[in-house]
Amino acid sequence: MNAEIIAVGSELLTPDRLDTNSLFLTGRLSMLGIRVSRKTIVGDQPGDIRDAFSEALHRAEVVISTGGLGPTLDDQTREAVSGLLGLALKLDQETLQHIRERFKRMSRAMPEINIRQAMVPEGAEILPNPRGTAPGLWLEPRGRRIILLPGPPNEMEGMFEQEVVRRLARRGAGIRLVKCEIRVTGMGESHLEEIIAPIYSSYPNVETTILAGQGEIQIHPRMWSADAEAARHILDELTAKIEVALGDHIFSSVGETFENVVAKALTANHATIATAESCTGGLVAERLTRVPGSSAYFISGVVCYSNEAKTALADVSPAMIATRGSVSSEVAIAMAEGIRRRSKATLGIGITGIAGPGGGTPEKPVGMVHIAFADENNTRESRFVFPGDRERVRWQASQVALDWVRRYFLPGSCGVN
Amino acid sequence: MNAEIIAVGSELLTPDRLDTNSLFLTGRLSMLGIRVSRKTIVGDQPGDIRDAFSEALHRAEVVISTGGLGPTLDDQTREAVSGLLGLALKLDQETLQHIRERFKRMSRAMPEINIRQAMVPEGAEILPNPRGTAPGLWLEPRGRRIILLPGPPNEMEGMFEQEVVRRLARRGAGIRLVKCEIRVTGMGESHLEEIIAPIYSSYPNVETTILAGQGEIQIHPRMWSADAEAARHILDELTAKIEVALGDHIFSSVGETFENVVAKALTANHATIATAESCTGGLVAERLTRVPGSSAYFISGVVCYSNEAKTALADVSPAMIATRGSVSSEVAIAMAEGIRRRSKATLGIGITGIAGPGGGTPEKPVGMVHIAFADENNTRESRFVFPGDRERVRWQASQVALDWVRRYFLPGSCGVN
Repeated sequence: MNAEIIAVGSELLTPDRLDTNSLFLTGRLSMLGIRVSRKTIVGDQPGDIRDAFSEALHRAEVVISTGGLGPTLDDQTREAVSGLLGLALKLDQETLQHIRERFKRMSRAMPEINIRQAMVPEGAEILPNPRGTAPGLWLEPRGRRIILLPGPPNEMEGMFEQEVVRRLARRGAGIRLVKCEIRVTGMGESHLEEIIAPIYSSYPNVETTILAGQGEIQIHPRMWSADAEAARHILDELTAKIEVALGDHIFSSVGETFENVVAKALTANHATIATAESCTGGLVAERLTRVPGSSAYFISGVVCYSNEAKTALADVSPAMIATRGSVSSEVAIAMAEGIRRRSKATLGIGITGIAGPGGGTPEKPVGMVHIAFADENNTRESRFVFPGDRERVRWQASQVALDWVRRYFLPGSCGVN
Repeated sequence: MNAEIIAVGSELLTPDRLDTNSLFLTGRLSMLGIRVSRKTIVGDQPGDIRDAFSEALHRAEVVISTGGLGPTLDDQTREAVSGLLGLALKLDQETLQHIRERFKRMSRAMPEINIRQAMVPEGAEILPNPRGTAPGLWLEPRGRRIILLPGPPNEMEGMFEQEVVRRLARRGAGIRLVKCEIRVTGMGESHLEEIIAPIYSSYPNVETTILAGQGEIQIHPRMWSADAEAARHILDELTAKIEVALGDHIFSSVGETFENVVAKALTANHATIATAESCTGGLVAERLTRVPGSSAYFISGVVCYSNEAKTALADVSPAMIATRGSVSSEVAIAMAEGIRRRSKATLGIGITGIAGPGGGTPEKPVGMVHIAFADENNTRESRFVFPGDRERVRWQASQVALDWVRRYFLPGSCGVN
């Protein structure tokens, strides 16, 4: 069964507001086996509202709207839908009574304008609103279902739970959405797609979406099925094949954040870490300490922007900075080893580079970053030239450093190399 | 002139993701005198994409889509729109070359699948993508304009600014949106509203929106007018009244970021700064170094989580930690003064507290943070108990510290007090 959601409200067409009600509705509907196939956002003009309902009714079995049921003149959903279906609006005495009582309980007189909220299209079922004045409405024209809900999230959610769920469940098909989420770092979207497309395309009943985010890619396989256990079995099989194909590029198969995964690896191995950062300006330390309980593994971090600070805080020799330059393999290595030694941590990270937009040269362009990672026996160092602006360069550098930490603890890892 | 926005992507029809690109687009379009009259969100099915474009073209002069231009098989916007308009897709050698070079710069071979991104509908203008592989496309069927943009926000925004704005501006209508943006920190939304509501409600032709963000509140007065100069005059008058009412709570009347304002104050006064952070974990250093050119004022930062690190990196005496506790006024002051002295910076910041969710006690609950700020003559210190989760506590603490730095440089400031 398909549903469309229509959010009504001119404020939802400004740069300041998003329709967030649809997240709640999409989640609840998927639990009822109803798939949302389109979302439409229109302003308060009656013609626009009417068109949106008219089109949606041609495509979907269930059309749910939020907003436009208030008392003021810019609330036009009731009128637009009645007009579209050719239904007269009649005053419903019981609803009017409910609204009057609500005002009475707040020791206020009901403003005349609220009478509009008691106008009900002929043949509509009224959905009581325990949290507000606007009742919802349920209509069934030509075998379709139209559900008009109020816009304020708490009223909409309360009404959906109390009135809509059981009415829809009665008619639901028993089909459920089963899904999983695999998160990957350290590879590009196209490369990932080349590897896993042959796998997921052999599961035509599974919809697989690939989403590229900051420093990571998420793979979302989803399946609608009446037999949730069988669907789970198929998704597990697909996930296992993707896991084999992508190997340790996968940092979570259960949707954890990257920072949490790194934190768990450090904690589980009773390891500690210290950071010496130049161009990332404290971002690695900040990401390492986002996770509650980070004091178990994070010892200290230094942000050494100036050459003097690199010497004072991470024991980088001034001679090395003078001969190799502050953005160099040698300095990154000295930072990682210096901060590790000083803080007596198990692991040390050193990062130096040019985040831009200024400061680049032909030999050392903007985006060039040296990253070093040291344990008590070895130090690994690599040079990168990251694309993008200052923020992206910094993020990518922090991502590589944290990913080295994660991989260090993988079974079969050869230390820092 | 009216526009519709179509966001393409099955993930946008799940409970986990919203189309946020439309906020940026709505804002930029309104500055060009173009009103957004509808937003539609569809999944990856080519038929659904095609229908959405077909309907939008009947209603709006400009149709802008985001998403579905990637290399993978679930990216179908190009194909759906070509099909709808009856245009053949042809391989564009120049675009292919651009994509190949992009992969080359990252020292990777271009996967075969990326060739799809160089397929261009006949007669389409190509909008280069400096931040990614997917080019945008500009089509003008039957006097309408169709603009296909990529889904990742940074690619979409970069392309809109560089390629779309000037093309649309050329054709814009006479009515413009004139607006300004006042940014405030250090006061609550209700309090601010009480103060400024009497001011802005006396300007009925100005739409004023108040948006509460992380650590700051933005006031957006907006006015549509054919006479931009007259509108600007009215907005300037309103802004001046708000400035008088809110005083130095305002950190920008021209929409600058808070970090930029702090950076400009430091740079203009040839001041330098160093940070010693415990519970904020490097967030203050990271925010201070977000701004290009931050090496002019940022000397060094230390993240000293453990007691040993507080002593080793910021010269806090072990005896003081033992008697007063690591979360105390004395330790915050010692951190600020210690890091200032060590780094020879003009100013020093020290922060110690309990970000939570663990670690709180009845005397020192979660959210308690001591913040200290030192110059060569004085040190200021205050204790706060911030509400909210770990992330909010950390953010609020960093906001207070940076706001002290900003206020330090205001005309008439009495140093650190």
